[in-house]
Amino acid sequence: MRIAVLGTGMVGQTLAGRLVELGHDVTVGTRDVAATMARLEPDGMGNPPYPAWAQAHPAVRLATFSEAAAPAELIVNATSGNVSIAALDAAGFANLAGKVLLDIANPLDHSRGFPPSLLVSNTDSLGEQIQAAFPDAKVVKALNTMNCSLMADPGQLAGGDHSVFVSGNDADAKKAVSQLLESFGHTDVIDLGDITTARGSEMLLPVWVRLYGALGTPMFQFKIVR
Amino acid sequence: MRIAVLGTGMVGQTLAGRLVELGHDVTVGTRDVAATMARLEPDGMGNPPYPAWAQAHPAVRLATFSEAAAPAELIVNATSGNVSIAALDAAGFANLAGKVLLDIANPLDHSRGFPPSLLVSNTDSLGEQIQAAFPDAKVVKALNTMNCSLMADPGQLAGGDHSVFVSGNDADAKKAVSQLLESFGHTDVIDLGDITTARGSEMLLPVWVRLYGALGTPMFQFKIVR
Repeated sequence: MRIAVLGTGMVGQTLAGRLVELGHDVTVGTRDVAATMARLEPDGMGNPPYPAWAQAHPAVRLATFSEAAAPAELIVNATSGNVSIAALDAAGFANLAGKVLLDIANPLDHSRGFPPSLLVSNTDSLGEQIQAAFPDAKVVKALNTMNCSLMADPGQLAGGDHSVFVSGNDADAKKAVSQLLESFGHTDVIDLGDITTARGSEMLLPVWVRLYGALGTPMFQFKIVR
Repeated sequence: MRIAVLGTGMVGQTLAGRLVELGHDVTVGTRDVAATMARLEPDGMGNPPYPAWAQAHPAVRLATFSEAAAPAELIVNATSGNVSIAALDAAGFANLAGKVLLDIANPLDHSRGFPPSLLVSNTDSLGEQIQAAFPDAKVVKALNTMNCSLMADPGQLAGGDHSVFVSGNDADAKKAVSQLLESFGHTDVIDLGDITTARGSEMLLPVWVRLYGALGTPMFQFKIVR
């Protein structure tokens, strides 16, 4: 499948790398290609800059948000939650129309330090805000409840014996995303319902960040035992 | 142990029944003993009224919030989240001082219909509000992330192979609660940290209620796979 991954950070890199490994045609989207390729320093988390990653992944193209989204069949929002709407605006309303938009971002508010709180929660969600801003896109919220390494390769923890949620208004779009998640190695995809159920999965983040603190590792996952 | 369970609803009944079964000396606290004993109709969920339950559990006493709390060594807040502070006020500031206060309530806002949202979240929690209102009590938040039947008897689902969280400022109080939870059959008690981490566990409720809708049963549990 032709897939655009919007976002050049650790999450975008990890997803793009996995998608290429699985045989997809992948373009990473960024605001400014030249600026992204001029980065020489590791990011705030110590991850290598995009150019170093790109060198190791020659099959992945880099383009503007709009150039990446225009020909894509499926678009992954892997930007930071606080800039997602702006990035999708730059990708272009028409370039998202009719397409599956897999939103894996969280509306994290880092302004109070660690752990982050949420910019929007309880009676609204980032997933809903994106669906409202781009009503012709088929938004599916998923993967936002785990570390990006486990998003892309869940089998590395307990053989994939844990759960992932999908929320969205379009049944076919949720089916397409579920199949993609299963191709990554996810074994338990739970359909929570329409896009308003993204409130539920996004509100897992406050306990996720505290579990990260308590367990001392991001390599853990929620499993819904039933 | 001498334990007061504040709240006469399904959650209070289930916890009180289990505690008596495990050999504890249990008093259920209510606002108005005569009014509670005059209830003849099932509650809104179809559960039998308190007098019917009490008849089947003769070892459990019923008393006012204050009478129940005064002699108790450990107090369980099993009231509805929207009235918890008022119920604890009625129990009496001095009657809570120096004691372990196990808070299992959730600040659910049912005013918008199903699913409920939260009355407080993200930058505050009911657990913190209770600790702030009763600074001499040793508040431990726990058990609020599951159905009451699983709170009391977790072994009935997957042999107890799932997780429960504790949050609180007092290490000894968390240890006492953890031991109580283990006596119920909980096998994986995770200490999230101080009482502010109750924000995390309380914010699990929005996904819990949506999972309840998606799965069609409340008999499921979160397991933290790591």
